[in-house]
Amino acid sequence: MSSQRVLPGPRQRLRTPPPPAAATPPDEDGHALWLRYPLLPDAARRALLKQVRSLLFMPGRSTPTRQAAQAELQRAWQGLTGRALKLSAPTAATPPSGALVLATPRAWPVLKTLGLPLAALGTEGYLLRTLLLARRKVTLIAANTDIGLLHGAFAWLRALQTGADPASLDQPSAPAVRWRMLNHWDNLDRTVERGYAGQSIWDWWKLPNILDARYTDYARACASLGLNGVSLNNVNARAEILSADWIAKAAALAGVFRPYGLRVFLSVRFSSPRELGGLDTADPLDERVRQWWAAKVDEVYRAIPDFGGFLVKANSEGQPGPQDYGRSHAEGANTLAAALAPHGGVLMWRAFVYAAENPQDRAMQAYDEFMPLDGQFAANVIVQVKNGAIDFQPREPFHPLFGAMQHTPLMAEFMVTKEYMGFSTHLAYQGSLYAETLASDTHRPCSGTTVAQSLCARLPGRPTGIAGVANIGSDRTWCGAHFEQANWYAYGRLAWSPEGSPQALAEEWTRQTFSQDAAVVKPIVAMLMASREAVVNYMTPLGLHHQMATGHHHGPGPWISDLKRPEWNPTYYHQADRDGIGFDRSARGSNAVGQYAAPLATAWGAAASTPDELLLWFHHVPWGHRMHTGRTLWHELITRYDAGVTSVAGMRRSWQRLRGRIDVRRHAEVASHLAQQEREAVWWRDACIAYFQSINGLALPAGARKPARPLAEYQAVRFSFAPGCGG
Amino acid sequence: MSSQRVLPGPRQRLRTPPPPAAATPPDEDGHALWLRYPLLPDAARRALLKQVRSLLFMPGRSTPTRQAAQAELQRAWQGLTGRALKLSAPTAATPPSGALVLATPRAWPVLKTLGLPLAALGTEGYLLRTLLLARRKVTLIAANTDIGLLHGAFAWLRALQTGADPASLDQPSAPAVRWRMLNHWDNLDRTVERGYAGQSIWDWWKLPNILDARYTDYARACASLGLNGVSLNNVNARAEILSADWIAKAAALAGVFRPYGLRVFLSVRFSSPRELGGLDTADPLDERVRQWWAAKVDEVYRAIPDFGGFLVKANSEGQPGPQDYGRSHAEGANTLAAALAPHGGVLMWRAFVYAAENPQDRAMQAYDEFMPLDGQFAANVIVQVKNGAIDFQPREPFHPLFGAMQHTPLMAEFMVTKEYMGFSTHLAYQGSLYAETLASDTHRPCSGTTVAQSLCARLPGRPTGIAGVANIGSDRTWCGAHFEQANWYAYGRLAWSPEGSPQALAEEWTRQTFSQDAAVVKPIVAMLMASREAVVNYMTPLGLHHQMATGHHHGPGPWISDLKRPEWNPTYYHQADRDGIGFDRSARGSNAVGQYAAPLATAWGAAASTPDELLLWFHHVPWGHRMHTGRTLWHELITRYDAGVTSVAGMRRSWQRLRGRIDVRRHAEVASHLAQQEREAVWWRDACIAYFQSINGLALPAGARKPARPLAEYQAVRFSFAPGCGG
Repeated sequence: MSSQRVLPGPRQRLRTPPPPAAATPPDEDGHALWLRYPLLPDAARRALLKQVRSLLFMPGRSTPTRQAAQAELQRAWQGLTGRALKLSAPTAATPPSGALVLATPRAWPVLKTLGLPLAALGTEGYLLRTLLLARRKVTLIAANTDIGLLHGAFAWLRALQTGADPASLDQPSAPAVRWRMLNHWDNLDRTVERGYAGQSIWDWWKLPNILDARYTDYARACASLGLNGVSLNNVNARAEILSADWIAKAAALAGVFRPYGLRVFLSVRFSSPRELGGLDTADPLDERVRQWWAAKVDEVYRAIPDFGGFLVKANSEGQPGPQDYGRSHAEGANTLAAALAPHGGVLMWRAFVYAAENPQDRAMQAYDEFMPLDGQFAANVIVQVKNGAIDFQPREPFHPLFGAMQHTPLMAEFMVTKEYMGFSTHLAYQGSLYAETLASDTHRPCSGTTVAQSLCARLPGRPTGIAGVANIGSDRTWCGAHFEQANWYAYGRLAWSPEGSPQALAEEWTRQTFSQDAAVVKPIVAMLMASREAVVNYMTPLGLHHQMATGHHHGPGPWISDLKRPEWNPTYYHQADRDGIGFDRSARGSNAVGQYAAPLATAWGAAASTPDELLLWFHHVPWGHRMHTGRTLWHELITRYDAGVTSVAGMRRSWQRLRGRIDVRRHAEVASHLAQQEREAVWWRDACIAYFQSINGLALPAGARKPARPLAEYQAVRFSFAPGCGG
Repeated sequence: MSSQRVLPGPRQRLRTPPPPAAATPPDEDGHALWLRYPLLPDAARRALLKQVRSLLFMPGRSTPTRQAAQAELQRAWQGLTGRALKLSAPTAATPPSGALVLATPRAWPVLKTLGLPLAALGTEGYLLRTLLLARRKVTLIAANTDIGLLHGAFAWLRALQTGADPASLDQPSAPAVRWRMLNHWDNLDRTVERGYAGQSIWDWWKLPNILDARYTDYARACASLGLNGVSLNNVNARAEILSADWIAKAAALAGVFRPYGLRVFLSVRFSSPRELGGLDTADPLDERVRQWWAAKVDEVYRAIPDFGGFLVKANSEGQPGPQDYGRSHAEGANTLAAALAPHGGVLMWRAFVYAAENPQDRAMQAYDEFMPLDGQFAANVIVQVKNGAIDFQPREPFHPLFGAMQHTPLMAEFMVTKEYMGFSTHLAYQGSLYAETLASDTHRPCSGTTVAQSLCARLPGRPTGIAGVANIGSDRTWCGAHFEQANWYAYGRLAWSPEGSPQALAEEWTRQTFSQDAAVVKPIVAMLMASREAVVNYMTPLGLHHQMATGHHHGPGPWISDLKRPEWNPTYYHQADRDGIGFDRSARGSNAVGQYAAPLATAWGAAASTPDELLLWFHHVPWGHRMHTGRTLWHELITRYDAGVTSVAGMRRSWQRLRGRIDVRRHAEVASHLAQQEREAVWWRDACIAYFQSINGLALPAGARKPARPLAEYQAVRFSFAPGCGG
């Protein structure tokens, strides 16, 4: 059955709008990301040129990092002001009036005399401040390290492009966690698992000798957000990644990234000692295995002296792991960690595990498996925990391990790529999702402790971190669609400041990516802020989850019940029957709710005190259940599906109204994505309502639109060659 | 064994050159191809503005094709002159002085009164001419059709950028063959068989609703060369390409391409009636099969009214075909052709066949299989013949079918992508290769009839054509490297004018792609013109062929002898033993030479009268054989390998000297490719010499450098995850 044909819904095009105004900006292809540096509006440009007289003052020795900062400032200055940014000779003298000063206390001891809060900046932070030095007005970017200066340079350029007054800056900033990771699920054949932006940007074949200029642009983009680690390859790892050839390729990338403060990590296969080392075992307690890892890690560090460490997916979804040898996750992790420790390397060990033979609620397995190991992990291990307990759903309650493991550093793993949220076709700003998780109160060890706080240093000397699964590929836009860039942006900025506001970040991104014109910024920010809830509503409202079709996870599949493992089936998650719907995770059910701190276990343990948004996550509820809105559950469900569709239609109208204010090319590209999203939102709504109606036999509420087609047609939809299914 | 490590040779970098001059042009990423339209040099700009006063005069009704021509002229004018190209109202009046006039006789009857050679332009050609009209100086682009005007607009822009005097143009031009095809070997999962430029540019998943702006740029680039057909998918075809979903995707692309005169073709799988139609046979003489094809073709034409036709690879390398049912290639082709005929569609049937069980010289099989069918093919069939009888080798004599099949239209198939010539890493300008084949004298039906002439209309009412296997992917450069664009360019221009000069095309391309500065043009053209012979020399000198490693065809593998089918083994092709080397295709051997016309059969039938370049293709020769150079074969072989390496080193030095005249980014990218090519040229030379020496036991000539490593090390090189091996 044809997929395109079954998608009902709105006409492909809105009425042809009038031709764009003469003032329509020139076409862009999105490749410049948020680092476009267009000419500032007149008033802002005048204010800036009054404050900074095109002079960069950088005392101290030149380093690749300082050169990168200088090049970025020069490039940006040319774009923002139309002028060249001149350099002052690097002396220790007092800078001239109107100078832009980039300085560390080491390169410019004067800095120590100014009473600045330098200590709080750490090794990566920065301070932007305007001040008078010997009655000369200067703009200071101060840091304790060159990397801090680079971050500061990017922060200053961001400030200029987001409406800050260049004459009155006072902005100290330091990252909340040590490792701010982008994790690429890129395969060695250049396919990308769950990638919707084309092939991997790593051109493995041409590496290590041929270095695409794109690698530098990638590092610039990461550094502009403060990201400092990149895991190059898929967590479903091939042993070959640790072969000499691939180490050389990783080393070449590390060389490009180094000046930008971006360290390389690799995902490794637990059984590499067998596949690559020729051993007959990968038992982590076998001495030959330990030696193999130690020698291999030594080899890696010889090629990459500042190598970050390993990321491991073990005993999960078919990957080998320590349990194959009767060892625990901690025993497995500690063997690899021991090899990394002498070099200062970190081991990131994923807690995303669920076992085929385990009849237990899948949402509970990671907690049950890892909690007993709390305290058993070596000092350089971080356990990496997905934001929710299932798998990167449009909405999940925060993972119960956050806050619970008090003796083990955890890092949160978010998905920037949108496996379950419409690939790169649907506009869904995940800043809201990340912030929702990060701001969740774990109530552990005490109320008021958010997930964000739980990620920060609680355990002296132990590493901290946060990870995002990259949405980056070789598409011209990097991310498969212009608005996908906002997710990379928001993730990166939240990784630096996990308590940041998603709305403020949406505005920052919009101003840098599209325009500083309020008539553009306001509607785009509104679209961004509405978009994630729209997806929740048309895909999985009211706490539903994992209703996506099999394998590729594109489109609705609530009827799917025939997959081998029960927890692969959407029916496992919605548990709908004639009487009701929802997964009972209360004490009467799986009691997953019991994995949370008492205040949450109590609140979420009863349907009445569970927020509507999580109701069906925690409770099996009769179709006639009265919601907080006063509607029955069945009516509320339909209302939510409709709200999702309506919201997308609204986004589409907002975008149409921006015609003429956005360049023709990007406007058309986004418009076609929104049109597709609207068709698919309707498809989701209709397919889900048709299916649930077939289960409960209830009439639609008065005025509700009937699904466009019979259920069987939705069930017959098949997609071949869907992207992102790996190589 | 590590691959990178075994590659010996030159240091990775030449001595660091001085920093680029201040006048170094701004960075480019190559995405604009030869359609960059940079500001013309002062003198050229003044001359142009004198001739054309920024006014475009286009009488007649607006059409998408005319809009495309107008948009291209406006874009280009802005770039080349820094001014806007204004439009004159589309009237039938006499154009003002200084006008650029684009007109067809139908839209502007005045044209018919001017005594112009319009008839010779056909339906796609154009005339560029400067003339006085009522004493007003105008520049005329005339054609019989809108597509002709578009081709003319591109030709005029090319003339401006390659040094033509805009005041004295007189350039009529029409294509030599009807179908000028780019054949994409793109799979439905977006991998590209033999693709070295990233993923397919067809984003199948987002089609048909989301149309990447790149599709338009692709059509512009094709139209600028005069290409008019594109086969979208791999000849190793999946049946799904003819499913409703994929027809819709192809139709969406056809909609983008239509204004550019570019028609869509599909590669189809011969057994589709079984896989897609559910029949129990694909026998071409089965009435149900015929009906299935007729109905499917009707469906395609409903979606794509100007659909071009099918391309078929049948009974070759495992593909299904008519012989599976005891039918001939003609019977198979004619069934599909009959379905296409009512719609005016063309069937392109590949002659690249060789059978597993056939002990005959592989080079002879296509001729022997197809010659008996001459005259049996339906009127809308073209048989597509590779340029040589083996498989896109660095050098092959022309395919003996050219000229031989006198009652069947043949189209030549060239490879633009470089499966056997160093992927996208090695600089190898194939304009020279294409022209060498096209200029070959077939001596059929009489001496002086070149391959190019044999492609042109000889059979009234029958289609003609030429095909190139595309080297295009989603890489920023389109082709995986800047210099690869020259192969797309040269192929496209030769498809229009098969008697064109590769050197002139190299110069055209260079002027448009890099600079009109003679100090840039001259050395780059010299590099291009030397490059293909360099590859022949370091890979397969003196008529050697198919010496590449297995599967991916990257790097040397002359020792490989253990593959299942004899004709997959390099040893099959070189036949080297203690006494001599070469494949005896003389009358004493396979007598492949007997497939050529008598004068060639005679000349190539004896070693003494065979050109050195083809010696080992046709003859098994003693190592001590005296070559035309006076050297023994063994010494000559080494001399040629050395010449290949030396030539690459020279290209590299030439490029280094261009530093400062080429933008930093492109200069660095090309430099790193050339460095890799030099390493790999040395590798080829050393590995081949080491191997052949192990066979003949001969000493190296005095002064010849010993291979850097023992043979076993070259033999141990393995590549995993090589690109282009398909999905």
